[in-house]
Amino acid sequence: MKVAVLGYGTVGVGVYEMLKAAKGLEAGPVLVRPGKENEAFKVSSIEKITEDPSVDAVAEVMGGVEPAFTYAMAAIRAGKHFVTSNKALVAAKGVELNRAAKEAGVSFLFSAACGGGVPFLHNLARAAQTDEILSVGGILNGTTNFMLDQMQSTGKDYAAALKEAQELGYAEADPTADVTGLDALRKIMLACAVAWGVLPQDGLLNEGIDSLSAADVKDFMARGRVCRLVASGQRAADGRISAYVEPVLVRAGDAESAVLKNYNMARYEGKNAGPIAMIGQGAGRYPTASAVLRDLSGICAGEAAMFPADCVDGSADNSAAKHAYYVRLPKACGDLFPAAEILADNGEELRILTEEISVQKMHESAAALRKAGHAVFFAAVREA
Amino acid sequence: MKVAVLGYGTVGVGVYEMLKAAKGLEAGPVLVRPGKENEAFKVSSIEKITEDPSVDAVAEVMGGVEPAFTYAMAAIRAGKHFVTSNKALVAAKGVELNRAAKEAGVSFLFSAACGGGVPFLHNLARAAQTDEILSVGGILNGTTNFMLDQMQSTGKDYAAALKEAQELGYAEADPTADVTGLDALRKIMLACAVAWGVLPQDGLLNEGIDSLSAADVKDFMARGRVCRLVASGQRAADGRISAYVEPVLVRAGDAESAVLKNYNMARYEGKNAGPIAMIGQGAGRYPTASAVLRDLSGICAGEAAMFPADCVDGSADNSAAKHAYYVRLPKACGDLFPAAEILADNGEELRILTEEISVQKMHESAAALRKAGHAVFFAAVREA
Repeated sequence: MKVAVLGYGTVGVGVYEMLKAAKGLEAGPVLVRPGKENEAFKVSSIEKITEDPSVDAVAEVMGGVEPAFTYAMAAIRAGKHFVTSNKALVAAKGVELNRAAKEAGVSFLFSAACGGGVPFLHNLARAAQTDEILSVGGILNGTTNFMLDQMQSTGKDYAAALKEAQELGYAEADPTADVTGLDALRKIMLACAVAWGVLPQDGLLNEGIDSLSAADVKDFMARGRVCRLVASGQRAADGRISAYVEPVLVRAGDAESAVLKNYNMARYEGKNAGPIAMIGQGAGRYPTASAVLRDLSGICAGEAAMFPADCVDGSADNSAAKHAYYVRLPKACGDLFPAAEILADNGEELRILTEEISVQKMHESAAALRKAGHAVFFAAVREA
Repeated sequence: MKVAVLGYGTVGVGVYEMLKAAKGLEAGPVLVRPGKENEAFKVSSIEKITEDPSVDAVAEVMGGVEPAFTYAMAAIRAGKHFVTSNKALVAAKGVELNRAAKEAGVSFLFSAACGGGVPFLHNLARAAQTDEILSVGGILNGTTNFMLDQMQSTGKDYAAALKEAQELGYAEADPTADVTGLDALRKIMLACAVAWGVLPQDGLLNEGIDSLSAADVKDFMARGRVCRLVASGQRAADGRISAYVEPVLVRAGDAESAVLKNYNMARYEGKNAGPIAMIGQGAGRYPTASAVLRDLSGICAGEAAMFPADCVDGSADNSAAKHAYYVRLPKACGDLFPAAEILADNGEELRILTEEISVQKMHESAAALRKAGHAVFFAAVREA
């Protein structure tokens, strides 16, 4: 199977190299920006790929919704299988791509869009065929996990941890999508769609780690807790789907606490299989490229789709999910959580442990406080 | 696809129940012992299955090499796809079954034989298509992990931990295969064959946990270590494959230390994907049945084999693998390891930390000591 590659950045180079070494797969043309066609295998117009009858499949690793979406639809309509590592694309346009691929009789797979080298979505899709998926989630963003690990193992502050992540290539120049939790949110959106056939487009909540200070780390570590950025997706008995991302204070012995550096831990719970967790590198050239290659090899073996055929866009509803929260907020605002236990009071700021409150209420309260100019950090507290 | 089930014990009941609920799969006849045909769907002769043209696939969950092997070959030769949870069968006869299935044009899958509900071998086989597998291994036996967790979290001695495992259904009446490491060894044999196309039949080494005492636990826990029974498979640059099972003292923060109860942690390292670990319930009715069902569903989607087509029987060679070992042995035998550091000396027994020695030498030394009537416990020490 001859595979064209869209994009020749970090992941694209890895995919191209692996294609040249793979049995049963062949490297086709690579789409680059005009003016960058400095080698014979590079082309700068998508038509050179979609109109090339020798190309069987297209692997898109450019990132961003456009022009990736336009190229994807052109490839699919031209009868090419389509594989992507692009979570922004699939989170926004996955249902449309899935429908178009089914109509064109081609495969549409995107393992690399969630979990990097961790074969999470493939297994989730496979499990959903014969088991009822109860929940999905985990540590899905390697950049923030690296930063959290650094802050907690070395005492570095947020800015220093971010700088180090950028120097090591774990964080981009603009790290917004990672540190705000948006990247992890897109990944949990994909997992919900794979598990339950609903790609939530609104009602979602995401809190990142950009409010975390070295003082927060010092305080909750003294209380025996470790912070991880965790994505959660769950389907209630009535069919409503919750999907959100937030920092969670796990206990030192919990499995998440052993997930270090830029690693991911993706998990699902099947009614029959029980809880399954998968740990590996969530980003990087070769881990991500390996996921693209596994999808391409899977297409040769007949794999067609990760979303169910009838997958639709829908809404998340986080009103029923509840946790106790650790919150740092101005002392003057403490009456927002009248039933909370006060853990520390330095005269200006409080650290409190709330009673069980809804995820929705916590995220909305923090947003309201920030809108009023107050600094807030919060994290759900994992129960015993 | 109509599926007949061979065996109606713990796993067989789960498979039959799940088949009745699964989309695209249909429950066929179930083979039971003569005299046990107390329901219409039960039959007691294998011919009623192999000669039934409506049966498309056979799921074998009886355990043991015979009569499972004879039944498997009959099913395959009759053109039925063959799925099994039986590691003893596949470890002994996997190459022959794989060849017969290929000749007959049917699928041969055995996800449930290693990892229970953890989708390990499926992913290993998929990864091996496009990545180079460097190593395989992990905690592959839930019974012993449960016992180790009990001994280390509650201070129970070996006999009490075994009794509890039996009462909870995690250990069989005859726990020999589990506690001696043989069960984990069979699983790592399968992983080697999936990864590298060689099913090692000799040269293997396995040490279980049946020499572990409460005093050992107390001592190494005081040294900050946690014991797990770990299987290891590795391919050297020259193609030689090492495969062995032994207790390993990991550090409190290592990922294995968070694997509790009857859970498994199966892992592989791909040259491109990096290290991947998968955690879940390694045994039990529904986790194991879920793996059988995923294979059956995979067959509907075109999955044919886990072993490479040219998989052969071969030998393991553990002469190059090396570790430092924690050893408890009679003081009189201490000169077997002259370069070791003495950790404790109670006048009768020593606890020592050896220099790096070969796995082969350690296992052979322990065997020689036991042959001479001495009590020995040993565990590899995970390096920093």
